[in-house]
Amino acid sequence: MGVMRIGRAELRVLDLEKSVDYYTNIIGLNVVGRDEERVYLKAWDEWDHHSLILRKADAPGLEHMAFKVEKSDDLENFEKRIEQFGCTTRRISKGTRLGEGEAVRCELPTGHQLELYHEIEYLGPEVGTLNPHPWPENTRGIAPHRLDHCLLTGEDLESVTKFFTEVLDLHQSEKIMTVDEEVMVGSFLHARNGKPHDLAFIKGPDKKLHHAAFFVNNWYDVLKAADILTRNEVQIEVTPTRHGITRGETIYFFDPSGNRNEAFANGYITYHDFPTITWTEDKIGQGIFYHRRELMESFSLALT
Amino acid sequence: MGVMRIGRAELRVLDLEKSVDYYTNIIGLNVVGRDEERVYLKAWDEWDHHSLILRKADAPGLEHMAFKVEKSDDLENFEKRIEQFGCTTRRISKGTRLGEGEAVRCELPTGHQLELYHEIEYLGPEVGTLNPHPWPENTRGIAPHRLDHCLLTGEDLESVTKFFTEVLDLHQSEKIMTVDEEVMVGSFLHARNGKPHDLAFIKGPDKKLHHAAFFVNNWYDVLKAADILTRNEVQIEVTPTRHGITRGETIYFFDPSGNRNEAFANGYITYHDFPTITWTEDKIGQGIFYHRRELMESFSLALT
Amino acid sequence: MGVMRIGRAELRVLDLEKSVDYYTNIIGLNVVGRDEERVYLKAWDEWDHHSLILRKADAPGLEHMAFKVEKSDDLENFEKRIEQFGCTTRRISKGTRLGEGEAVRCELPTGHQLELYHEIEYLGPEVGTLNPHPWPENTRGIAPHRLDHCLLTGEDLESVTKFFTEVLDLHQSEKIMTVDEEVMVGSFLHARNGKPHDLAFIKGPDKKLHHAAFFVNNWYDVLKAADILTRNEVQIEVTPTRHGITRGETIYFFDPSGNRNEAFANGYITYHDFPTITWTEDKIGQGIFYHRRELMESFSLALT
Amino acid sequence: MGVMRIGRAELRVLDLEKSVDYYTNIIGLNVVGRDEERVYLKAWDEWDHHSLILRKADAPGLEHMAFKVEKSDDLENFEKRIEQFGCTTRRISKGTRLGEGEAVRCELPTGHQLELYHEIEYLGPEVGTLNPHPWPENTRGIAPHRLDHCLLTGEDLESVTKFFTEVLDLHQSEKIMTVDEEVMVGSFLHARNGKPHDLAFIKGPDKKLHHAAFFVNNWYDVLKAADILTRNEVQIEVTPTRHGITRGETIYFFDPSGNRNEAFANGYITYHDFPTITWTEDKIGQGIFYHRRELMESFSLALT
Repeated sequence: MGVMRIGRAELRVLDLEKSVDYYTNIIGLNVVGRDEERVYLKAWDEWDHHSLILRKADAPGLEHMAFKVEKSDDLENFEKRIEQFGCTTRRISKGTRLGEGEAVRCELPTGHQLELYHEIEYLGPEVGTLNPHPWPENTRGIAPHRLDHCLLTGEDLESVTKFFTEVLDLHQSEKIMTVDEEVMVGSFLHARNGKPHDLAFIKGPDKKLHHAAFFVNNWYDVLKAADILTRNEVQIEVTPTRHGITRGETIYFFDPSGNRNEAFANGYITYHDFPTITWTEDKIGQGIFYHRRELMESFSLALT
Repeated sequence: MGVMRIGRAELRVLDLEKSVDYYTNIIGLNVVGRDEERVYLKAWDEWDHHSLILRKADAPGLEHMAFKVEKSDDLENFEKRIEQFGCTTRRISKGTRLGEGEAVRCELPTGHQLELYHEIEYLGPEVGTLNPHPWPENTRGIAPHRLDHCLLTGEDLESVTKFFTEVLDLHQSEKIMTVDEEVMVGSFLHARNGKPHDLAFIKGPDKKLHHAAFFVNNWYDVLKAADILTRNEVQIEVTPTRHGITRGETIYFFDPSGNRNEAFANGYITYHDFPTITWTEDKIGQGIFYHRRELMESFSLALT
Repeated sequence: MGVMRIGRAELRVLDLEKSVDYYTNIIGLNVVGRDEERVYLKAWDEWDHHSLILRKADAPGLEHMAFKVEKSDDLENFEKRIEQFGCTTRRISKGTRLGEGEAVRCELPTGHQLELYHEIEYLGPEVGTLNPHPWPENTRGIAPHRLDHCLLTGEDLESVTKFFTEVLDLHQSEKIMTVDEEVMVGSFLHARNGKPHDLAFIKGPDKKLHHAAFFVNNWYDVLKAADILTRNEVQIEVTPTRHGITRGETIYFFDPSGNRNEAFANGYITYHDFPTITWTEDKIGQGIFYHRRELMESFSLALT
Repeated sequence: MGVMRIGRAELRVLDLEKSVDYYTNIIGLNVVGRDEERVYLKAWDEWDHHSLILRKADAPGLEHMAFKVEKSDDLENFEKRIEQFGCTTRRISKGTRLGEGEAVRCELPTGHQLELYHEIEYLGPEVGTLNPHPWPENTRGIAPHRLDHCLLTGEDLESVTKFFTEVLDLHQSEKIMTVDEEVMVGSFLHARNGKPHDLAFIKGPDKKLHHAAFFVNNWYDVLKAADILTRNEVQIEVTPTRHGITRGETIYFFDPSGNRNEAFANGYITYHDFPTITWTEDKIGQGIFYHRRELMESFSLALT
């Protein structure tokens, strides 16, 4: 039945323990497991075993990201469609990483590694599933509900958009076009889940991560996140504001390795029958930072 | 590819003009058309032609509700599955109501009239689709984003849940069970759209409407809605609170004909792979009104 | 220079340890001292030694409340004016209670015990006074900023209002009058501090406490307070709503002895040159509970 | 009994009609009168005749600001104290400006013109004073509650602070000191009204206005203000954030003449017995913009 959502992101980090400290105490995720090379984390409101993997490396960035599919048959089905599209695939066998079943991996037209998977251990949300309270009693830091989306950069956004819409059946909620309407410079994509994006791309070098975003509940929680980041002396790149694109409320900041993070709230509900919203590049500033109305240099340059 | 969302509700009202005044000036919908018997309305953030139809009648209630399906082929497909389930269907021809294409109608195990449709005229959100602002400049009243869900009553919630999960492939996000776990007394169902419910049932007489809900953005907008209702002397049944079920923020009130309305905000994102959350009937008060922790008499009795 | 603010309330409680547990873990105050009969507590944002005193007793209620005056000379000055008004006064000597200096005590026309004081030990807010963060890192429960006001009942609101406005130079922000405008049934009074009330009275039996209120920051914090009370199974009498009077956002609930508490947010800023706002008794429901528009029986009857 | 609050600010503007359009349609004030040179405006929640005066001039800036005193006798009293402090005063006669009675004018040690007044016509808040609703039905733009404070620049903050604390009996809530603690570079002052500031100074050239601030209710209203400014293409200098000093939530932007405005929400309650909070200049970035933690160049340079 198809792709459900972004399920996990594996980030490369320079100092594993410093990163675990940041993602647990400041972001507020929980460590659910460790193996030789990786630490596995989960947000309080997620049901599956983990959504974030930290892996020690010499340079920061995105090792891979993965989408969860609804049925185990979907794996084989999508594997074929990916091959037909012209990307090579390979199977990642069960047990390669903690808690995970088999996955299909491929390289996107933008050079990023994508996996599809169905099987993963189930831990359940921290509030349980029997007469649950609305939020857990003890949380730390920003305490987001979940991993929300990733934004990547790439040279050819037409191709990668085609990959996601035609092969994986995602829907493009919004796009940014050059003023002559000839080149796509931003693409926002989501599975059938109402979210304005599970994954997005802006034009830039291939293989790079722009940011990984975590979902917080509302505009006050964005303020709380900003306050927590200042108290902990974490660099904030973009102070609280609204996106024109997605309408979401947001702040951007950096993990200890320089990977950009976002705390993202709100945003509309969208569907596969909604026409794609178009932004023209002359309005890209307003589209991305609705109040500032221009990009800061770091926003385009700081990629991992 | 299946059911996308609740698309419309047709409400029976006693005084059409008084109802139009209420749904436009207090709720804040826009009239998009009228025919001899009906007035058609749309919320500012909806894309399709209308989501609410008011129809003059001798008694209030729900004339029908309808789900939009993603592909036109879905109609025939679901028609067969509904027949196989044992419900009779009939086609509603294009042009029966304004802006709508053909629909498949059936009677639910609870006696309610349900339609499925794909075709409907497109008007677009009030903010447009080219470099849109996040909200329209001029709104009236509560100004919800959209029709969010309906809650109906029925005798046999096991059957109607089976209908929606097996025939229409909805997912049950939550259920309320008697303490002995033998009888389902509440059932919350959603399509593949992340919403905690498009439609829900609580045990009660067949064919009745409990409420139709409109989505507002956040807890401050729930307060604003309550303030507007008081200023306009609209009866509020349940003042601002949180649901345990769905975690949503809410108020309940009545339209001029006695149909219950809700302004609903927030609520979690859910998916078809999430296990159904269970509430036991001894906690039903907390499940429905998390702060009050008990039902008021009117909440069970006032049905239309 | 006069009265600055409500400074403390001494509540009678039935079970001291149970009460301390409630006021520290659910309300979120800090214990700052104990003597043989009493426990002293302080909110995180208060500067003085304590604002709440719990005293073991056979019946709940208000032992005394006290206003802090700006200058030590004010004590003698007010003492004379109180005597001239016709109330007897007595000095409470320094050291009678922890951290406190000398006080002047009198009995109000409504039978309540009022103290005025200037001297009290200084502890400072939890965030400190050098480059402070906006909120403390570790809080528990509702974590109000401060004791905000008390509401008392009494037979003769004209006299007690005259006492506070003419003797203590408070200002009446709002009043509730019978429809014939002859009898005052509600009176809201504040010192020169912008608050809509430090102290209020509604008509009822003398000597009784209606509630003691703690200040929370905003409407989301009222929701958080309500969520915390439900999780801890504390009885909520009035779920989140707005007052017409003061415009404040509010919930009411009970401490383990039956003393009513309020978490109160927002409210306007007012001044001594503002005319008193008048509510007529036929609108008292709306004045007190803006959304419900009527009083519940318990609200008038549950007094301690 | 003393100074109550900032009562009005008279701003010099380049194009009167363009400014009136901005202050009425974008800020949302109401025009209450005009004379040959000036337009008078009032916020919906203010009680007095006006709080903002726009005056056509060749250069932007602050013509004068004024504090309202509680009693008419206060005028003469403060007049003497100002003279004793060494500033010359002069009387502004009743009728010089619309709606105003007599005032005492003096020049501050920083070269700004300050007036004190008691008499001013009374218009009342838009919601009335009999059974009022909490907010008016029809507002435009940002719709602040009131003029909140002004921030001015000056060379000698020690002297001007002494003037306000010793002569006008204001209280200094916070100050910014050079790291050696020898020079005051920021001073925040308030009357007996609980507000963290009616007036503030930062070190800079004499006679200049840094900004005039309007009070909005909460963090969501700061977001709404920012959205409105973007829709109307008003330049925003500082997007939504929190101040360390005052804890207030804020945005900064410019009127059509280049006078800086602020929409300010929240902030703590403070009193004359609270010790002054100290910020050291090495933390001035965090003190002023808690999330950004550094000043932007324009913030120091754009003065009118």
